[in-house]
Amino acid sequence: MFSCWISRQYWGFSTPTGRIAHLIRGSLSRTLVLSSQRRTPEFSSFVARTNTCGELRSSHLGQEVTLCGWIQYRRQNIFLVLRDFHGLVQVVIPQEESAASVKKILCEAPVESVVQVSGTVISRPPGQENPKMPTGEIEVKVKTAELLNSCKKLPFEIKDFVKKTEALRLQYRYLDLRSFQMQYNLRLRSQMVMKMREYLCNLHGFVDIETPTLFKRTPGGAKEFVIPSREPGKFYCLPQSPQQFKQLLMVGGLDRYFQVARCYRDEGSRPDRQPEFTQIDIEMSFVDQTGIRSLIEGLLQYSWPNDKDPLVVPFPSMTFVEALASYGTDKPDTRFGMKIIDISDMFRNTEVEFLQDALSKPQGAVKAICISEGAKYLKRKDIESIRKFAADHFNQEVLPVFPKASRNWNTPVAQSILEEQRSGLIRLMEIQEDDVVLLTAGEHKKACSVLGKLRLECADLLEARGLVLRDPALFSFLWVVDFPLFLPKEENPGELESAHHPFTAPHPSDLQLLYTEPEKVRSQHYDLVLNGSEIGGGSIRIHDAELQRYILATLLKG
Amino acid sequence: MFSCWISRQYWGFSTPTGRIAHLIRGSLSRTLVLSSQRRTPEFSSFVARTNTCGELRSSHLGQEVTLCGWIQYRRQNIFLVLRDFHGLVQVVIPQEESAASVKKILCEAPVESVVQVSGTVISRPPGQENPKMPTGEIEVKVKTAELLNSCKKLPFEIKDFVKKTEALRLQYRYLDLRSFQMQYNLRLRSQMVMKMREYLCNLHGFVDIETPTLFKRTPGGAKEFVIPSREPGKFYCLPQSPQQFKQLLMVGGLDRYFQVARCYRDEGSRPDRQPEFTQIDIEMSFVDQTGIRSLIEGLLQYSWPNDKDPLVVPFPSMTFVEALASYGTDKPDTRFGMKIIDISDMFRNTEVEFLQDALSKPQGAVKAICISEGAKYLKRKDIESIRKFAADHFNQEVLPVFPKASRNWNTPVAQSILEEQRSGLIRLMEIQEDDVVLLTAGEHKKACSVLGKLRLECADLLEARGLVLRDPALFSFLWVVDFPLFLPKEENPGELESAHHPFTAPHPSDLQLLYTEPEKVRSQHYDLVLNGSEIGGGSIRIHDAELQRYILATLLKG
Repeated sequence: MFSCWISRQYWGFSTPTGRIAHLIRGSLSRTLVLSSQRRTPEFSSFVARTNTCGELRSSHLGQEVTLCGWIQYRRQNIFLVLRDFHGLVQVVIPQEESAASVKKILCEAPVESVVQVSGTVISRPPGQENPKMPTGEIEVKVKTAELLNSCKKLPFEIKDFVKKTEALRLQYRYLDLRSFQMQYNLRLRSQMVMKMREYLCNLHGFVDIETPTLFKRTPGGAKEFVIPSREPGKFYCLPQSPQQFKQLLMVGGLDRYFQVARCYRDEGSRPDRQPEFTQIDIEMSFVDQTGIRSLIEGLLQYSWPNDKDPLVVPFPSMTFVEALASYGTDKPDTRFGMKIIDISDMFRNTEVEFLQDALSKPQGAVKAICISEGAKYLKRKDIESIRKFAADHFNQEVLPVFPKASRNWNTPVAQSILEEQRSGLIRLMEIQEDDVVLLTAGEHKKACSVLGKLRLECADLLEARGLVLRDPALFSFLWVVDFPLFLPKEENPGELESAHHPFTAPHPSDLQLLYTEPEKVRSQHYDLVLNGSEIGGGSIRIHDAELQRYILATLLKG
Repeated sequence: MFSCWISRQYWGFSTPTGRIAHLIRGSLSRTLVLSSQRRTPEFSSFVARTNTCGELRSSHLGQEVTLCGWIQYRRQNIFLVLRDFHGLVQVVIPQEESAASVKKILCEAPVESVVQVSGTVISRPPGQENPKMPTGEIEVKVKTAELLNSCKKLPFEIKDFVKKTEALRLQYRYLDLRSFQMQYNLRLRSQMVMKMREYLCNLHGFVDIETPTLFKRTPGGAKEFVIPSREPGKFYCLPQSPQQFKQLLMVGGLDRYFQVARCYRDEGSRPDRQPEFTQIDIEMSFVDQTGIRSLIEGLLQYSWPNDKDPLVVPFPSMTFVEALASYGTDKPDTRFGMKIIDISDMFRNTEVEFLQDALSKPQGAVKAICISEGAKYLKRKDIESIRKFAADHFNQEVLPVFPKASRNWNTPVAQSILEEQRSGLIRLMEIQEDDVVLLTAGEHKKACSVLGKLRLECADLLEARGLVLRDPALFSFLWVVDFPLFLPKEENPGELESAHHPFTAPHPSDLQLLYTEPEKVRSQHYDLVLNGSEIGGGSIRIHDAELQRYILATLLKG
């Protein structure tokens, strides 16, 4: 139910280039008029109202105003609370005989009807001020009123405290949009995108270019939507991204391009992606990774909402290898610790069979994470469900170890962990009273992956039990860099395929490895990760025709 | 070959609303860095270059600079002219033995190759300055150079004076984009749209909301593109406009919406419209025609390029009835006169049979336009072709009359126009020596239509003969208002249909006519016309449920 956007930025073709992408979810703050606006727009220009409902203050006392809004509620046919996107204001229904028609309109109009009222801003009688309401010092004494449209009985009340199912909200989307939260989300998104445009267009000379969406098929990548053309047997495709167009724009000397681009993937809806989505799409020439990262950091800093803590740049960065080893994933949630520790050396002489087994194999390792206060917050069945999760999803055995805890649900196997190993763990992992260690063994990447998943599972469990691990106000950005350029082909591990796409430039330090050990070459691909979600990604492109030819023809046998 | 956009703006549903739309073609001016930028963006932030090629001046003398650009041309292996989007700069190729490798790179790279050079900005030797070149006082003495990419033989030279066919330009679009004109067009469009966004979003509190493009069929209107979904037998449609979404946004209390919206019509390409096009789409609540017109005038004024004459607002406006009577069309080109004059009264007693005939019928009229200096600039065969055009396309007789001209190709029929009528014409139409009058007769609307077409044909002919009728620097905006709300159905003229769509509000003065003579009701639809093209349109919507029901159920028998 949050509006979200996914943005990606890519870089050129005939020139050194790179790409990056990101997604930002609607914020949860309730302020409706965002403090991020540098100058308050004229919300009442060109229209019948003189003011918005939410803006009236003591400074407006005595002013004749006209308001247009929705009836939020009515009290004893004396007061009406009127709402627009800006806020609420109390309106006094006239009780005099001479204003009978006005009274009739305002008393008979059902809640959520749209009315236009004119009157005078007056002070509330002493003692009747409402300090919780921004307009709580004043009220509007109505002289004239017009019912613009009457509301029928609603399927739900437009009040935040009234719980509605998501299905009902979607069915009556146009009514759900009247809620404070939806208004805030849509306005925040509009303003952030506007500031991104200012940064790119006005401050850094990027050119906003609309590229066509009726296009032809792009081989590889996601399933595409097709559109029959007027010529029988011929189809258009909706683009997965403006990739080819922006490469051509760079060749065309456009130099610095951006677009808030609609993209399409016929892949059904996923929690973080719909069949159509929007990305901030950037491409620039003559740039390197440092340049791109500064650009994107500046972009986010400039467009960041003022009601949040300002972003600190540069964002930290981490290599792909390090992310995998410490977090078991290429998109680590760095809002909390619980990092994966390699404890192989401690277990070289273990008698535990599955640890022995793992260590005897190439890349074999013993790994562990420490769940702080796990013995206090997790129940025995939590630990069991964690072990079952690892067994079911990864076919991987996980041992819970309680090095210092008084409570101890160690499995029989864990009993055979030596005292020496236990104290080693306590030292290496800085174990506290009540901490639980989850320990697994196997091939390095697999062992890290399973612990990476369990780390997140445990965090969810702990938070469900009331521990706050991840500060909801924290935005933890992270660059993940130095991805591998190639991966072994799944169907034939003797051959290589591009980890991202064949135009990604190799890491400059690894150029020579291309000709000797290409599987070890790192790429100039980078991802931007926020709180454990990949919100953007990009790469420097190969601009050397010779090198591109070598990779396509010799390494990828294209 | 010009980039253009079509923009439309529509207005709400549950509240008084209206719509408007427009299209602006790329300008022809050659200035590359547009004066309309209030602050010069940092074109060289984040990248390898320190400066753009076009920005170097005497004030940069002595500076060490790095430039990235395309080789425009080379002179005697001594000078290289480097180009980027910003302009041209002369680079001095080092001739010393120690710089042999730099010289080799710069002398061997084919024209249009991409190079990066570093060096010092120096004065050109006295007498070698080039005042026609903005960078003509300086040159760059190169120290290091790198060939970023070498260019193969091009299908055409990237020089403005080299004529290319449109087919060749489209085939090599990425090369054509390197031309000054294409760079200018794309950058102008980007900047104008950016300023429109600033005006709407930052100055007037509009919310930029992206609406879905995978949608369902909208009955009526243009043919739509369909997209098969994953569910057999079910299809999406690409929207003709965000019409329904923005109506729902108004109902949802969004109040002021805009979008630079992609729209789709499966109608093949036309000179002014492609199957996919973009419109500035606006909807607002609580507004009337005056408000909308001010908003749009302010929008255009704010976003108008600074290298053009500023726009004068308010734009003139004209009723539909007047536009038809004076210009024979609802989109008059008001850059020149040659208005249609009703001369019926002068011919009540005529002996000319087809005039008599026309005047005896209902709505019958005699109409004329005066072609200034027509007898001087037009040839006999031009007049003949004009008459043939009217006969072929409108089955309409047109008489050329030369009231004062010495040259006289009057037809035999025209001979029978009386001296009294001739002098009447001279007086009424302010005829000068050498003017030609084109005269026709028939039903009012038809007679006006044919003369409206002939007016434009004659303007083209006169301009082809060297007369300047329409100032190419003139942007003549015009509101056309008070369109009819209903038209007789073509297949059954006894019944009415909506002239635009059934949600258009009637003119407030004509409300009572709805119940008596609905065919006479004027609407609150309005078009914005520029130099004879409709570039936008909109309407105030019906917000009264009762009225809407009456129009749909009783008048349109929906």
